[in-house]
Amino acid sequence: MSTYGSLFRVTTYGESHCASVGAIIDGCPPGLELSPQDIQVQLSRRRPGQSNLTTPRDEKDLVHIQSGIEHGVTLGTPIGLLVKNEDQRPKDYSETDLYPRPSHADYTYLEKYGVKASSGGGRSSARETIGRVAAGAIAERYLKLAYGIEIVAFVSSVGKIHLPATVAPPSLAPTDGNEDNDEAQDALSPEFRQLLATITREEVDKHPTRCPHPETAERMTQRIIRAKDAMDSIGGTVTCIIRNVPSGLGEPVFDKFEAKLGHAMLSIPATKAFEIGSGFKGAEVPGSKHNDPFVLKNGKLGTTTNWSGGVQGGITNGEDIYFRIGFKSPATISQSQETAQYDGTPGALAARGRHDPCVVPRAVPIVEAMAAIVVMDQLLIQNSRRTATSLLPPITTLPPTMVMPPH
Amino acid sequence: MSTYGSLFRVTTYGESHCASVGAIIDGCPPGLELSPQDIQVQLSRRRPGQSNLTTPRDEKDLVHIQSGIEHGVTLGTPIGLLVKNEDQRPKDYSETDLYPRPSHADYTYLEKYGVKASSGGGRSSARETIGRVAAGAIAERYLKLAYGIEIVAFVSSVGKIHLPATVAPPSLAPTDGNEDNDEAQDALSPEFRQLLATITREEVDKHPTRCPHPETAERMTQRIIRAKDAMDSIGGTVTCIIRNVPSGLGEPVFDKFEAKLGHAMLSIPATKAFEIGSGFKGAEVPGSKHNDPFVLKNGKLGTTTNWSGGVQGGITNGEDIYFRIGFKSPATISQSQETAQYDGTPGALAARGRHDPCVVPRAVPIVEAMAAIVVMDQLLIQNSRRTATSLLPPITTLPPTMVMPPH
Amino acid sequence: MSTYGSLFRVTTYGESHCASVGAIIDGCPPGLELSPQDIQVQLSRRRPGQSNLTTPRDEKDLVHIQSGIEHGVTLGTPIGLLVKNEDQRPKDYSETDLYPRPSHADYTYLEKYGVKASSGGGRSSARETIGRVAAGAIAERYLKLAYGIEIVAFVSSVGKIHLPATVAPPSLAPTDGNEDNDEAQDALSPEFRQLLATITREEVDKHPTRCPHPETAERMTQRIIRAKDAMDSIGGTVTCIIRNVPSGLGEPVFDKFEAKLGHAMLSIPATKAFEIGSGFKGAEVPGSKHNDPFVLKNGKLGTTTNWSGGVQGGITNGEDIYFRIGFKSPATISQSQETAQYDGTPGALAARGRHDPCVVPRAVPIVEAMAAIVVMDQLLIQNSRRTATSLLPPITTLPPTMVMPPH
Amino acid sequence: MSTYGSLFRVTTYGESHCASVGAIIDGCPPGLELSPQDIQVQLSRRRPGQSNLTTPRDEKDLVHIQSGIEHGVTLGTPIGLLVKNEDQRPKDYSETDLYPRPSHADYTYLEKYGVKASSGGGRSSARETIGRVAAGAIAERYLKLAYGIEIVAFVSSVGKIHLPATVAPPSLAPTDGNEDNDEAQDALSPEFRQLLATITREEVDKHPTRCPHPETAERMTQRIIRAKDAMDSIGGTVTCIIRNVPSGLGEPVFDKFEAKLGHAMLSIPATKAFEIGSGFKGAEVPGSKHNDPFVLKNGKLGTTTNWSGGVQGGITNGEDIYFRIGFKSPATISQSQETAQYDGTPGALAARGRHDPCVVPRAVPIVEAMAAIVVMDQLLIQNSRRTATSLLPPITTLPPTMVMPPH
Repeated sequence: MSTYGSLFRVTTYGESHCASVGAIIDGCPPGLELSPQDIQVQLSRRRPGQSNLTTPRDEKDLVHIQSGIEHGVTLGTPIGLLVKNEDQRPKDYSETDLYPRPSHADYTYLEKYGVKASSGGGRSSARETIGRVAAGAIAERYLKLAYGIEIVAFVSSVGKIHLPATVAPPSLAPTDGNEDNDEAQDALSPEFRQLLATITREEVDKHPTRCPHPETAERMTQRIIRAKDAMDSIGGTVTCIIRNVPSGLGEPVFDKFEAKLGHAMLSIPATKAFEIGSGFKGAEVPGSKHNDPFVLKNGKLGTTTNWSGGVQGGITNGEDIYFRIGFKSPATISQSQETAQYDGTPGALAARGRHDPCVVPRAVPIVEAMAAIVVMDQLLIQNSRRTATSLLPPITTLPPTMVMPPH
Repeated sequence: MSTYGSLFRVTTYGESHCASVGAIIDGCPPGLELSPQDIQVQLSRRRPGQSNLTTPRDEKDLVHIQSGIEHGVTLGTPIGLLVKNEDQRPKDYSETDLYPRPSHADYTYLEKYGVKASSGGGRSSARETIGRVAAGAIAERYLKLAYGIEIVAFVSSVGKIHLPATVAPPSLAPTDGNEDNDEAQDALSPEFRQLLATITREEVDKHPTRCPHPETAERMTQRIIRAKDAMDSIGGTVTCIIRNVPSGLGEPVFDKFEAKLGHAMLSIPATKAFEIGSGFKGAEVPGSKHNDPFVLKNGKLGTTTNWSGGVQGGITNGEDIYFRIGFKSPATISQSQETAQYDGTPGALAARGRHDPCVVPRAVPIVEAMAAIVVMDQLLIQNSRRTATSLLPPITTLPPTMVMPPH
Repeated sequence: MSTYGSLFRVTTYGESHCASVGAIIDGCPPGLELSPQDIQVQLSRRRPGQSNLTTPRDEKDLVHIQSGIEHGVTLGTPIGLLVKNEDQRPKDYSETDLYPRPSHADYTYLEKYGVKASSGGGRSSARETIGRVAAGAIAERYLKLAYGIEIVAFVSSVGKIHLPATVAPPSLAPTDGNEDNDEAQDALSPEFRQLLATITREEVDKHPTRCPHPETAERMTQRIIRAKDAMDSIGGTVTCIIRNVPSGLGEPVFDKFEAKLGHAMLSIPATKAFEIGSGFKGAEVPGSKHNDPFVLKNGKLGTTTNWSGGVQGGITNGEDIYFRIGFKSPATISQSQETAQYDGTPGALAARGRHDPCVVPRAVPIVEAMAAIVVMDQLLIQNSRRTATSLLPPITTLPPTMVMPPH
Repeated sequence: MSTYGSLFRVTTYGESHCASVGAIIDGCPPGLELSPQDIQVQLSRRRPGQSNLTTPRDEKDLVHIQSGIEHGVTLGTPIGLLVKNEDQRPKDYSETDLYPRPSHADYTYLEKYGVKASSGGGRSSARETIGRVAAGAIAERYLKLAYGIEIVAFVSSVGKIHLPATVAPPSLAPTDGNEDNDEAQDALSPEFRQLLATITREEVDKHPTRCPHPETAERMTQRIIRAKDAMDSIGGTVTCIIRNVPSGLGEPVFDKFEAKLGHAMLSIPATKAFEIGSGFKGAEVPGSKHNDPFVLKNGKLGTTTNWSGGVQGGITNGEDIYFRIGFKSPATISQSQETAQYDGTPGALAARGRHDPCVVPRAVPIVEAMAAIVVMDQLLIQNSRRTATSLLPPITTLPPTMVMPPH
């Protein structure tokens, strides 16, 4: 439904053509210094009309906090917030009174609910993500202050234009096609690991595509403009890194860390694919090469490689968490498409309205937000367990095989 | 935690080295004819020791139903069931008292819980999936009888050996590398759609790898045996099709159908990637080609192509649902690996014990089970909504734009 | 937390001294005709300042619907709504900067959260109930239209002034004190059953105390005015009837109907007690007298008496559901109380601010709202089960003992 | 459904006439020393056949732990456990093939599920509570070791025989009937507070009725034997005290501590009423007398009286928590009752089978178990919040009104 999370819980409402969109964030730790600006900065990275690569719909997306914060400090009670819908033009959707947009949610929402909202796709609107971004900004603020956790997402491909192989995620590394050759190109790129270790939001935002490789970013821009000019659309992928996450997060067995993360990412509109660490590539590399050897790092076990993407057995191991999400090309395009009306009559639809030719630049803060929400919720759950165990008397009779050897 | 689902709810317990593994299935509709054999057949497809491609651990995996069924009919009350652990050999794990297995769950479980189970990875054991398979078999039985729903999973790759391009999932279709060429190889293969439409479990089971393409299956076998002989391991992918799912399933916005499905699949041990429909490929194909045009089929709207994989806007549209999951190479291998002990001392670990050199053949029934559980839970939720609306008096004043036109 | 319900789900935010209070109602069936007035009518019955028996705080409590409804029809998507806080006077609470109000939530909120909201008791404010009342009004609207369900609550006592024995709930019926006498006064009063069968909101609202027995209502008024004049407060009980609830609601074992109902009622501020049907009296009447004999009513089994209060084994049986809730005397009083400051310094607190001398008249719509929410959620869950079973093929082999005999 | 709790989660299965009853306890903190005997002791206090006051059904109720514990220490993974059903006599229920037992669950289960289990009432069986008692024993073990929490329940009434007024819970204290007299008998009995402060399970178990007042216990025994001899049944109340619970437990607003506690208690079979602290009496005592004044106790605020029952604003305040539950007279009686068959035919039913003439003595460990589960779950949630806040940097700008003054 419209609620995510167990201890840190986000509930959202709203769609394109109603008075406002908003969210209730429940379970935020009390005593957190939080200003509206902490939220606004991510909303502004998400808002439409920020460059010529995005929809011309013009929304300021100013956040109005209703409750849960006094004197700039969270009370621990639910934070209600909303953003008004100002630049609505429902008339833009008149063709879609007759035609369900192909591959959009118009038809499935009608099948689900039996009534048609004026916006067609109902909650399947980019504006729905405002509540997520606001909630994520709150989670992020906590994670940064309490753990130094950093979350940075960036565009790793638009259409067929990918980051160069040297800095590409593992599943995009070239392979020699020799199915019996386990060597060579399968190594995890050191440049990619370096990128993960150092990338910042400032660097990502230097280019409107939010691709941190300038030359590739420029080609992506051209690709998006080509789609826009053709009244067409194009998809892309977003890669995200989460640094400084403590080990031990993720709940066996159904709520493994990657399962929760995948769930959260695949709930973002237009997503079709998710992979963590080596991803699909991990199916091709033999165990002897794919396993991440342990080594002592700063007095704690770490791994020398990181095919695992920071998660082993569904639980974080303290290494960098990285993952990649595939966003399909937006369904709403202005060029004419042969399709059928709701009543089955064949015909051609050319959607009016304002659309993004490519969603990935604006998806970046949404991915970061969902990542923050997942980490936050898992942290609170694991914190509870650790604290609970720490209050028990030491076990005198525990066999040596059941204890962590000192190091 | 160890519970999945809201109305159809599965809770599991157990790991490798305890008395039994089991599950409680709550929310199964009453009045369903169900025999132990309906469950056993899938447990036997999952069990170890079924071929020379799997672990030699020998478990009969006989299911013992404890409650919830009388005279072969479900009562609607929780179905308790268990499978005994018979062929335990905890001594096999003595090296792992010193060494956490690289990329296994030994280390992360210890970080999470602070105590070490004798099996190391605790719940991160293939035996944990028994409860899922049993629950899935019950869900499947219902889905088959009430809706004619069919779920068939199969192995689509082992290592670098994939199904031939003609029958491969979209994300594996070759591309010409010309980033400005939107045409040609991007079409969804008709042979693949045919495969999805017709594949049966009987065909899948004809070869121990569970790959339905005999020539490829044979090469896969050789690849697995090569890994086994090298005391190494290899990964693979499983593709799954769900046929005859009604439209309208999936809950906006956080519980979109693909989000729930992705969550469920990524909770299976050793998974690193998930994609539905066009998947990562959907990021490369322009909207004008990727959109699935509507057409009247048997008096209801359907689509001519199916890049969407049966889900649009997070809600099923009645078309075939297909998705692909990446399983990494198993972490436990017998060859010696340079790594570190729990206390940080560098050394070499050669894991003893009985391991699968490749998990995908046995993963097939697990994928089917999780798919059945997801569909079942979503169906029950949507059924509730439909029934609720059907009991309301007709709305006389509803504007024509809000109603489904007759066809 | 701040969310209630599984399929019909209410999430609220807000307290006394923030911008607004509001709620998100998720899971409302689509296609329900619903106007703001349907909600406003119950908010106005709850609002402060409606008579000289309530707090002088003056709030119009106008509801602003943000989403989920178009053209007066629910879309099935979340309904966001809010009510502005207008008549705030935070300065009224200056003494409570030093003193936690005895038996209020000031101290426990500080213990829980570690920070003090300016209002002291944070969410433990009567204004928090606005979201509940709005959500309940929506649920009620559905229940009325789809099932003809009627929910009426009324004040059954103020202080020691109770409804006359003839129309009192069973637990208040007099007893002869002879512990060996099982006869006589234990019979369930026919006048009380008649009251349950016929009482309407119009009758309840005839008197500002919301007690349907005029002579008693007048004495209650005097009692409340006496408390007000003494700068003191007084408690009371609310009795509620729910008519026309179908049989079969309530989920064994932890979510029995009375358990969910009790949970909901005991979540209302100032409640200390809950009983359903015979309640505490049911502990005194022997089984042979307490059991409700079955009898055929309109072609279906019903019961001749109704000690059970419409619930047996945690599941509704189709008879009237009635229950009673005890509200303690409000903690905030203006007379001076000997107590201690937050730092332990002894002293005397005379709370300023605007308080209700007695909450039960305004609690009536809150009780109705929570009752509606509970019934709604349970109905949706049971609907799902019934629909699921109805889609199964008939069981040919079911033993006669497992089927309902025809009648 | 059959699952209770969020972080400490109990799922149960089983009824009277199946192979076993059992539970999965998820979320138990790792590192807890726990032996089967810790569980068995409470199961044995619950088991049938323990005295001539209980059902003659003879079950040893030996617990078999399946998982989650090694070398006597919890692993943090789910604890699966079961108890076999040995002394089944389904033939005893032959009359109930025709007749639904009045006020039992036979009819409502059939209405709910549409099929009849051989035991009639399905999960509405005393045996279902085995899983709860086992889970509660585990929670209690943790609470005792980590917090010194003590939970003791006892029988406070059987039929009309109550504990003497001096040691009775507040709602049973006599009143003078003068509705304008706020004085005198309303004071909370010091003897009752003394009883709460000192009562132990050993004292409770000295008499088979589990009433700690020997003279009253003897009269209760006679009352139960009278019911048994008359082939009738009788109800009673159980009072429970929880000592040493930290302040701050309970989640505003829907999951107030008393709401969760009430939910848990009203999910126990045969319960009809719940009150905490002053309970229904709290509706009669004016605020000026009912408010619990604060006072410094051991460097922390406490209260001089305790009408609140340890909970204020839905959150624990560190004082003793006490509450009372009403159990109706058991529905199954052997004397003949005029009623109707499932098909509506009038007739007389004399139930065979083995029944408790009074459930309260055996209900004592069930009440304790549910209390432990509620406290455990709330503790884990609040622990998580506290830990989260403790990791934040101190707020330099917090206004003095938002901080706890030092004491």
